[in-house]
Amino acid sequence: MLFKELNLCKCKTYLIACDVQNQAVLVDPVLENIERYLAVLAYNGLKLIDVIDTHTHADHRSGCTLLSELTDAKIVMHRLAPHPLVDVHVDEGDELKVGNIVIKVLYTPGHTPDGIALVLDDRVLTGDTLMIRGTGRTDFAGGNPAEEYDSIIEKLFSLPDETLVFPAHDYRGNTQSTIGEEKQKNPRILGKSKEQFIHVMENLGLPLPDKIQEVLQLNQTELDDDLYELPSIAELNRIFQLEPNEIKTFLGQSTPQVLIDVRSEAEFNGELGHIEGSILIPLDKLSENIEKLEKYKNDNIIVICRSGARSTTAAALLTGMGFENVSNLRGGMLAWNEAANK
Amino acid sequence: MLFKELNLCKCKTYLIACDVQNQAVLVDPVLENIERYLAVLAYNGLKLIDVIDTHTHADHRSGCTLLSELTDAKIVMHRLAPHPLVDVHVDEGDELKVGNIVIKVLYTPGHTPDGIALVLDDRVLTGDTLMIRGTGRTDFAGGNPAEEYDSIIEKLFSLPDETLVFPAHDYRGNTQSTIGEEKQKNPRILGKSKEQFIHVMENLGLPLPDKIQEVLQLNQTELDDDLYELPSIAELNRIFQLEPNEIKTFLGQSTPQVLIDVRSEAEFNGELGHIEGSILIPLDKLSENIEKLEKYKNDNIIVICRSGARSTTAAALLTGMGFENVSNLRGGMLAWNEAANK
Repeated sequence: MLFKELNLCKCKTYLIACDVQNQAVLVDPVLENIERYLAVLAYNGLKLIDVIDTHTHADHRSGCTLLSELTDAKIVMHRLAPHPLVDVHVDEGDELKVGNIVIKVLYTPGHTPDGIALVLDDRVLTGDTLMIRGTGRTDFAGGNPAEEYDSIIEKLFSLPDETLVFPAHDYRGNTQSTIGEEKQKNPRILGKSKEQFIHVMENLGLPLPDKIQEVLQLNQTELDDDLYELPSIAELNRIFQLEPNEIKTFLGQSTPQVLIDVRSEAEFNGELGHIEGSILIPLDKLSENIEKLEKYKNDNIIVICRSGARSTTAAALLTGMGFENVSNLRGGMLAWNEAANK
Repeated sequence: MLFKELNLCKCKTYLIACDVQNQAVLVDPVLENIERYLAVLAYNGLKLIDVIDTHTHADHRSGCTLLSELTDAKIVMHRLAPHPLVDVHVDEGDELKVGNIVIKVLYTPGHTPDGIALVLDDRVLTGDTLMIRGTGRTDFAGGNPAEEYDSIIEKLFSLPDETLVFPAHDYRGNTQSTIGEEKQKNPRILGKSKEQFIHVMENLGLPLPDKIQEVLQLNQTELDDDLYELPSIAELNRIFQLEPNEIKTFLGQSTPQVLIDVRSEAEFNGELGHIEGSILIPLDKLSENIEKLEKYKNDNIIVICRSGARSTTAAALLTGMGFENVSNLRGGMLAWNEAANK
C-alpha cells in the first residue's frame, strides 16, 4: 500500500493506493492542488478510481468535481451529502475497494451531518470529527455536538487502541496519532460526560472564517461562482424550513403551492424519485429559466432538492429576485421519502 | 543523459537523468514548480532518486522537502547545511550515482558556507558561487568573499576550459557558459587579486531582497511559517554567539547553564551525538513545550543544533518569549565535535 499526505499543510489530502493493481483513491482533495495530485498519480503510474470527501467542507473548495471530470474517477460521499454530482453514496458499513485494499466506511456525523471516517489496514481517516488532541467544530453547516460525541465514543473509540489516526486538518504541525493516545490525551473528551462535551462545544466562541458560507455553498451546489452571487448566511437563515408533513398538509389545501425541484434531471428521475406535480429547474439553470417562474411570483413556492442544502440556496436566490413566499423542504427528498415510509 | 533546465527564468532548476536506467535527480528545485517537475518526471518515465540543493537558498523556498515527501527521493546537501531533513550529507570528492551517470561533488563555499558544485560529464553546476560573468553575493547568510575567491580559482578554474558552466541563477538571460570563457571574461575575477576581489565583494552595496531573512530561515529550519513568526535579522543579530571552548569553560563553573538542543530526536541520537546534560526540544515543538522551560526563564540558556543556524532562530524565538539570557553555540555540534578533536 502507498499512503501519503499530499498537501503538507493544515488541510490534509490523503493518497491511498494499491501498488499491486496500481489503483488509487484521493481523500479530501483540495481544488488548488489538483495538478499536484495528477502529477503524483502519473509519477507513480496509478489510476484514480475514487475521489472521496469525508464531509462537505467549509474551509476550502473541494477538488472532487474537477478531478472526477479530468480522470473519470467516481465521487464518493455520504448519502446525506448535498453535492449534486456524487456517483456513489455510502453509509455505515459500506466497503470501497482500491485494488487489493478494502476501505470500510463508518458514519461519523457531528462536525457535519454527512461526516464519514474511513478504516483501512492499521489506520483510520477521521475527517474533521476526531482531530489530534481536538474535535471538529459543531457550530455551523449542520454540526451537532451530541452526534459528534457519539461518533467519537461509540464508533472511533471502538477501534483498537493501536489504530493510527489521520485527521483531515491539523493546526499544530501534527501528522498522526493513535486511537489509544486520543483516548488518553484528547482534552475535548478526556474525563468529560456527553453533557460536558456539548457544553464545551457550544461555547468555543470561535469566529467564522472568511468566506466560509460561500465555500460551503459552492461545495454543496457546485454552482459556478461567476454566474451567481451566493446568498449570505443571514439570507439563508431567513428561508422558512418546512417539514415533510407540513408540506403534505399544505398540498391537501386549496391555496396553490408551487413545488420547484432544483436537482439535476438524473436525480429527479433517479432512485429518490420526485414529488408529483413538482417543476424541475436544476439549480444551475435557475437564472436562465427565471421567466418561466414569473407567473408564480406571488404564490407560495416550496423548493426541493436531495438533502435540503441546494434548495435553501435556491430559495434565497429566488427571494433575492423578488419572489415573496419561498420556503424550503427541510432535509430534501431524503427526508420526504423517510417520512413516507414511517 | 537527459539534461534540462526546468524553470526558464532567473532562478534555475536542473534535471539530470540517465535514460538507460530511467533515474533522475533535480538540482535546486523551487517549491512553486513542484507540480511541473513531477509532471516532467512522469512524462519521461523517470524515478527521482535525489533532490540536491547546491546551497541554502535565500531567494526562494526550496522544493526539496516537499519533493522528498511526495516521491521518497533523498535530500542531498553539503554537511554544513542547516536543513533538518537532509538524508545524505556530502563533502568535497564525494560521488553521487544516477543510473549510469556519476556526479562528483566539489566543496565551493563563499556565497554560503554550505555551497557545492556538481561536476558531471562535460559540465559543472556551479550553484551561486560562480555565475555567468558574475559571482554570488557574499554579504549575508554566512557568505565569505575570500572563500568564494578560493572556490572559484582553486576548484572551479581547475576544471578543463571547455567545461560547460550552468549556474543556479542568471539575471541577464544567459543559460550557459564555459570555464574558459569565465576565466577570460568574468569582470568580478578578471585581473583581480584575492584582496581586490574581496574589496569589490564587500562594497557591492546591493539591497537585501524582501523577505530574504524569512525565506532563508524557512529553508534552514523547515518550520511551518503559519505556526511561527520568524525573528527579524536584527533579532537574530542580537543573539550572543559562543564558541565551543567558551561553553566548555562556562560548564566548568558553578553558575548553572541550561543547554537546549533543538535538533530532531534522530539527529540528537545520531552520528554527531549531543552534549551531556542537554535537553532535547526539537525546534518545531518549541512552542508546545515552552511550559517545560518556564523554570529556566532567568538562567543562562545555550541553544544548540547541527550547524548553529536553527539554534540561532530558536534563541531569538526564546528571547522574544521573555527568556533573558539566551546564547547560541556557534557552528553547532559540527563545531563542537571539531573543537573536541583538536
